[in-house]
Amino acid sequence: MKLHDVAKILDADVVGDGAIEIARVVHPSEATSPSDLALAMNKEMLAALEGSVSRIAVLGDDTALPEGRLDGYVLVTRGRYAMAGLTKAFDKPVHAPSGIHPSAVVEETANLGNDVCIGPFTYVGHAAVIGAGTVLMSNVTVGAEAVLGDQCLIHAGARIGERVRIGDRAILHHNASLGADGFSFVTPTQSSAEQAKESPSTDTVDVRNTTIVRINSIGTVEIGDDVEIGACTSIDRGTISATRIGSGTKIDDLVMIGHNVVVGENCMICGQVGVAGSTVIGDRVVLAGQAGIADHITIGSDVVVGAGSGVGANIKSGMVVLGYPALPKSKTTEIVLNMMRLNRLFEEQSSLKKRLTAIESGNEKG
Amino acid sequence: MKLHDVAKILDADVVGDGAIEIARVVHPSEATSPSDLALAMNKEMLAALEGSVSRIAVLGDDTALPEGRLDGYVLVTRGRYAMAGLTKAFDKPVHAPSGIHPSAVVEETANLGNDVCIGPFTYVGHAAVIGAGTVLMSNVTVGAEAVLGDQCLIHAGARIGERVRIGDRAILHHNASLGADGFSFVTPTQSSAEQAKESPSTDTVDVRNTTIVRINSIGTVEIGDDVEIGACTSIDRGTISATRIGSGTKIDDLVMIGHNVVVGENCMICGQVGVAGSTVIGDRVVLAGQAGIADHITIGSDVVVGAGSGVGANIKSGMVVLGYPALPKSKTTEIVLNMMRLNRLFEEQSSLKKRLTAIESGNEKG
Amino acid sequence: MKLHDVAKILDADVVGDGAIEIARVVHPSEATSPSDLALAMNKEMLAALEGSVSRIAVLGDDTALPEGRLDGYVLVTRGRYAMAGLTKAFDKPVHAPSGIHPSAVVEETANLGNDVCIGPFTYVGHAAVIGAGTVLMSNVTVGAEAVLGDQCLIHAGARIGERVRIGDRAILHHNASLGADGFSFVTPTQSSAEQAKESPSTDTVDVRNTTIVRINSIGTVEIGDDVEIGACTSIDRGTISATRIGSGTKIDDLVMIGHNVVVGENCMICGQVGVAGSTVIGDRVVLAGQAGIADHITIGSDVVVGAGSGVGANIKSGMVVLGYPALPKSKTTEIVLNMMRLNRLFEEQSSLKKRLTAIESGNEKG
Repeated sequence: MKLHDVAKILDADVVGDGAIEIARVVHPSEATSPSDLALAMNKEMLAALEGSVSRIAVLGDDTALPEGRLDGYVLVTRGRYAMAGLTKAFDKPVHAPSGIHPSAVVEETANLGNDVCIGPFTYVGHAAVIGAGTVLMSNVTVGAEAVLGDQCLIHAGARIGERVRIGDRAILHHNASLGADGFSFVTPTQSSAEQAKESPSTDTVDVRNTTIVRINSIGTVEIGDDVEIGACTSIDRGTISATRIGSGTKIDDLVMIGHNVVVGENCMICGQVGVAGSTVIGDRVVLAGQAGIADHITIGSDVVVGAGSGVGANIKSGMVVLGYPALPKSKTTEIVLNMMRLNRLFEEQSSLKKRLTAIESGNEKG
Repeated sequence: MKLHDVAKILDADVVGDGAIEIARVVHPSEATSPSDLALAMNKEMLAALEGSVSRIAVLGDDTALPEGRLDGYVLVTRGRYAMAGLTKAFDKPVHAPSGIHPSAVVEETANLGNDVCIGPFTYVGHAAVIGAGTVLMSNVTVGAEAVLGDQCLIHAGARIGERVRIGDRAILHHNASLGADGFSFVTPTQSSAEQAKESPSTDTVDVRNTTIVRINSIGTVEIGDDVEIGACTSIDRGTISATRIGSGTKIDDLVMIGHNVVVGENCMICGQVGVAGSTVIGDRVVLAGQAGIADHITIGSDVVVGAGSGVGANIKSGMVVLGYPALPKSKTTEIVLNMMRLNRLFEEQSSLKKRLTAIESGNEKG
Repeated sequence: MKLHDVAKILDADVVGDGAIEIARVVHPSEATSPSDLALAMNKEMLAALEGSVSRIAVLGDDTALPEGRLDGYVLVTRGRYAMAGLTKAFDKPVHAPSGIHPSAVVEETANLGNDVCIGPFTYVGHAAVIGAGTVLMSNVTVGAEAVLGDQCLIHAGARIGERVRIGDRAILHHNASLGADGFSFVTPTQSSAEQAKESPSTDTVDVRNTTIVRINSIGTVEIGDDVEIGACTSIDRGTISATRIGSGTKIDDLVMIGHNVVVGENCMICGQVGVAGSTVIGDRVVLAGQAGIADHITIGSDVVVGAGSGVGANIKSGMVVLGYPALPKSKTTEIVLNMMRLNRLFEEQSSLKKRLTAIESGNEKG
């Protein structure tokens, strides 16, 4: 690939020699040859270009570029978006198994589409359906009656539970779990947690959860098209309906999605987020890392929840919330600033009190 | 199954025609036939009944039910508890492997009870003991000398470490880990974390953890009867004793239980909770989602810890705590309310100050 | 092993009879024979010694030991450090597979060092390199072109992605994931999260993430020597460079390390910590349980981050920070104390206001 090919992919212009052949795509600091294409679309990368041996680059801004530093470069307007095009062009696709590995076990009743590839030690259960072109890497489990769409990529160790349904082009990463049973238990009478919730002002409970009865999860999990699910993420099956993830939604590693949850389309759910049972999340919602969402609430579309937030109540569409408990972002910012100057408040109050006492005693004497 | 059979299971009464045959058990919005039994035991479900084609239901409250809406229904007093009976009656049990799959590897020295079922690619190590009726699904690992009780259900990808002991009727979900080594390291002299803990008022450390020495985990994990452990949950082995989980305790997905921890009976530990090493937790304790419990502390029985809380000190039995740091629930509620009106406090103080200054300057002039 | 052998290992002195043969090493409460060596190096263990049948022990302090209670004991100065020596001496090493299990699949192009042991159902991909003496337990995946050093121990279910590189003596626990793709997506124009970050004072967003484009992860993961990685922990691959973990660093269970992150040497990263993409962490840093570190920031060396903290900004070397948001430890301590006495502040302000009003009205009348 030549520099002008990259420009074409990125719909951008070449400055200098577009005919230079590209060896590799690298961080500027990792170039080992003048023909390594240095990615320098942000400040940090641009700074690293200085000491680099690379003579070709992709830049987001060339105003500070010394004359003659590069033999050619591509100038892009939105560097981060260019990264998508670049990594696609220079992608290193997985070493997919060719066909069905002899060690794989596929039940006779399973139904495989054309060009399905199945790696070593992968098990496809009774009556499971695998769509055309889908790749199951090694050590994967597809439970009985599960249905996978076309062109999915299921990485090693992923577990797809029985009756789970997945759309087309889904990507599941290492050891992800779909369709474990929901965490759903009940006590014959009011439980301690129910009592605590009911009495917000008391700090003790007196009921005892001596009997815990299991609610079985007879529902399933349904995943739309173009969904990506991170390593060790766990999405539990619904009680009687399905837990649902809308098309286009991306979920990071170690995320937990509880039973009966419904997540809309094109959401971004970052690492270690937890969504408790029966909560409904709209479309295009962003949940930043480690955010926790309570059960049985509703998050509107386009909501942005900041990292580490604890959301305990419904949120209207388009809101940006932050904090524990999560509040509108400006309110949490105000609270944090106020907390930091509380010492001054205490000191000032003490001073006001003294001044007041002085006046009062003056008045008395007067 | 007929409607009056369901009533019998739930120990409740039928209103209307109890002889109607039930097709499926569904959320009201998902009924496709009049003979789908609509579960409408809470408000949300009851509202969904309005547009449903179902003519039979389970209700928690029939006071708002339009005359003639249903042909028959079962009226229950505690809807959530009824769910347990219903999902049990209509359960969809796993497609257990029949017998020992030819691809499974079971060491000759292992000891299998009657009717043990072992799925594809499951490995049972040296001298492991598997109780009668226990089902190991596919891709499971049972380490050497591990002991499992009767009637356990071990889902795909679960890892049971060497010498781990599990009681009867335990359920382990996808990719759960029992008996990984504890996270236990020590520096030859005081470590930075130890120094930081020792000096609460200083904000810097000057010791350097240049040497980190491993403490091996020669203990194990012991799990009681009727314990359920969620997907990707990790329970580490003890240093010299066992990490212990009491009978009847239920643990959700992505939970971490550190080395040497002792959890009592009938606890409910929700998703993404973390319990650090050597902490002791009583019976019937509820830890809500994402709560974190520090190491070497004691949580009494019947304690309820709110979602996202950070518990850094012992908690007495029966307490309800919340917040980061965790405090009695009413105290955290008070703090949150106070934080929200801090702006007013600052403004008012500023106003009081002005008024005070005015008086003072009046007095001076006077 | 005799008591004086233990003393030698611990570089400590025997008091009493050093020739006593040791049966087992136990917590004092779990001794079943006088020749079980009771570990009683801290207060809790020492208290448990009282009711123990053991007649030999390791003590950190013998000042309260009743005359004649033990037949012999070893007296150590730093009990926790002694634990490392003791558990090493009495270690129970894993039942490693002997050689390559017949069920394992190793691609012909893979390159195995001397004495490599590979367990059942473990897959070693195309051109992977496994160093001498390394043990892969059962159900492990080593992706194509991955490189493992010597003497590594890879526990069941661990997934090592393609092209990942691991140094010598690394330990990976159950179901750990190295080299899943980074969570890296971009919208063609500004995203809602970008808008929210840009406008700190507005609580709503109006851009809609209707198109989400994937940035492929063509980088990898590089792990140094003597690194330990916990169960279900996930370390994602870099975008174009590698995600890097320095030698000697120890990572606990259920930790997430995002793409492009660089972690230095000898760090201690505790359970459920999350480090978001592109963040750089120095050497000897301690991140306590459930801490969250934002993306694209820099944490200096020797920093200690308290449990549950949310770090959103750079931290200078040697700092001890705590809280959400993370602040210097004394500041967070101050804030927590102030928050707890806010009620008094409100009450006092109200009282000051009344007194002020009284003075003002007195002045007016006067």
